Amino acid sequence: MRYTWREIFEQPEVIKRIADFDAKKLNEASEIVKNARECYIIGAGSSLNAGMFGGYLLSENNRRENRIIPASEFAFRATMISGGDAVIVLSQSGESGDILEAIQFAKSKMAEVITITNNEKSEAALESDVCLALFSGQERGILATKTVTAEIAMFIMLSSAMNNDLEGGRKTLIKIAGELKKMLDKKSLEAIKKIAKSYENDHDFYIIGNNFFYPMALEAALKLKEGGRVHAEGFDGSEFRHGPITLIEKNTPVIYFSTQDNQESDLPEIKRSGGLITGVSYNKNKLFDNFYQIADAGLYSAVLAVVFAQLLAYFIAESKGLNPDEPKNLDKVVV
Amino acid sequence: MRYTWREIFEQPEVIKRIADFDAKKLNEASEIVKNARECYIIGAGSSLNAGMFGGYLLSENNRRENRIIPASEFAFRATMISGGDAVIVLSQSGESGDILEAIQFAKSKMAEVITITNNEKSEAALESDVCLALFSGQERGILATKTVTAEIAMFIMLSSAMNNDLEGGRKTLIKIAGELKKMLDKKSLEAIKKIAKSYENDHDFYIIGNNFFYPMALEAALKLKEGGRVHAEGFDGSEFRHGPITLIEKNTPVIYFSTQDNQESDLPEIKRSGGLITGVSYNKNKLFDNFYQIADAGLYSAVLAVVFAQLLAYFIAESKGLNPDEPKNLDKVVV
Repeated sequence: MRYTWREIFEQPEVIKRIADFDAKKLNEASEIVKNARECYIIGAGSSLNAGMFGGYLLSENNRRENRIIPASEFAFRATMISGGDAVIVLSQSGESGDILEAIQFAKSKMAEVITITNNEKSEAALESDVCLALFSGQERGILATKTVTAEIAMFIMLSSAMNNDLEGGRKTLIKIAGELKKMLDKKSLEAIKKIAKSYENDHDFYIIGNNFFYPMALEAALKLKEGGRVHAEGFDGSEFRHGPITLIEKNTPVIYFSTQDNQESDLPEIKRSGGLITGVSYNKNKLFDNFYQIADAGLYSAVLAVVFAQLLAYFIAESKGLNPDEPKNLDKVVV
Repeated sequence: MRYTWREIFEQPEVIKRIADFDAKKLNEASEIVKNARECYIIGAGSSLNAGMFGGYLLSENNRRENRIIPASEFAFRATMISGGDAVIVLSQSGESGDILEAIQFAKSKMAEVITITNNEKSEAALESDVCLALFSGQERGILATKTVTAEIAMFIMLSSAMNNDLEGGRKTLIKIAGELKKMLDKKSLEAIKKIAKSYENDHDFYIIGNNFFYPMALEAALKLKEGGRVHAEGFDGSEFRHGPITLIEKNTPVIYFSTQDNQESDLPEIKRSGGLITGVSYNKNKLFDNFYQIADAGLYSAVLAVVFAQLLAYFIAESKGLNPDEPKNLDKVVV
């Protein structure tokens, strides 16, 4: 059995474990973020996408503004960082070079650092003021799967702690874990496999998501790149219409993550351009060519969208005879 | 003669005109931005890329932190916006729906709005507190070319005004205009045409740029999409290595924008993966397969990189028998 496959299936358990995460640590982190002058969120690759989701969450749920910056760009762009600022760092390994440099930079400016990582003994963890360790078990697949959903889950808990509602966060995660379990049952897997099969000969994919689904569209694109070896690119719907839509030809694959309320605006134009649209949404829209239903868990449905993409990437890899555990040119820690 | 071609060639004049822009208006905008509690920069498509460049500039030159947000996401993400905040809006037409909604949202929160637009009679211009009009003449090509460099040029002037150094900004623009003129001479055009010719059969391009070159890599990718009808995607070097590099195969086109000091870190890995690298830089690196030299104008060299991409997109279109004035599925104003 492939590592990636096993780790995708571990996600409901991982998320449930985070639902019961140490309240003291969450409250400690919560106080830092609430009281910070400026809040930065940094990461790289999949962790950056999870961080972007977290940033949206802090804006929407906590009215906590924040700036999401790739770790490698942090020192260039956080020009005014100082004591009293908070930096939330996401890193699976806690050991990649960009991340460690960014943490050193933040510390040199006297900012407080909260690290969300799967390795509580990593240098990133040890350098931070608070470490929210994911305890997801080693991730051996090159594709980040369970650590991404764990990072998102931890952000949901942090956001809940900031609203003094850890119990609400816990319930949300239990709900997501339950929905994920359903996604991983045989019928659901067959449905996703069928969609993957229809994409066997496609190389260029466009993934659209608005608002909370936008970072998930980026993460889905990354999964399809790494696992499926296809050139997938993520967009928000409006930016997609501002240029990239020109590349849509008859049957170009478009994967559209949506909620009921925002899907109407972008779909007709994409459809007119010829795109073959797979809708990943709460309800079927007549413009979808394929449809995969995800549960309406509010903005948290984004987690389900990302697991859909993990599975899609996995099945595309399989149908092409690729090993998703070992994408070309990639090692696990990028130093 | 194609509109796009003509408009690319108008750029040195457009930039020179902006060098002499109304000091009073610039100072008025400068005061708003300097004194703002929070500064937001918004746009869509090419204008968003120009705005991102501007955001980097305000960080680096003015220690003015800022948040760069797509217009369509603005209301979701600027949750704390209020009176005392500044919003810098970039919009070629000043009429697209996303932009107007974002301005209305900002005004409803009592924030001050500065609009940088090519249409000083547009609704966006009329709704804003200060309008910095680009006066670039009508842009008839669908590809935003002269308006993008004009927006960047205006940001350079604004940043200079904030440092009480309008004369410095003027000199910078004069220098850029001079370098652009050289880029548009016969020998340079032949060199870019030759690079384009070598890409005639390629469909997937990866454009890399770090720091100031990152927004320009995004803009270059957009130009290649719209003009050249190729799936080009922009990255910063570190994010590229965190996953997307897996897609590089023997002779996959990689366009690498760089300055001398940061190019060493990403190049060897890309080269090892098989990428066919076109370097757009101050100096030749032995890992470049093609090389186009741009002048060292510090961070402003980014403007030259973007014009390189405009020309590359144009020539790729030509070599494929496409009309770059009329990309499929696109109209000028995206409402």
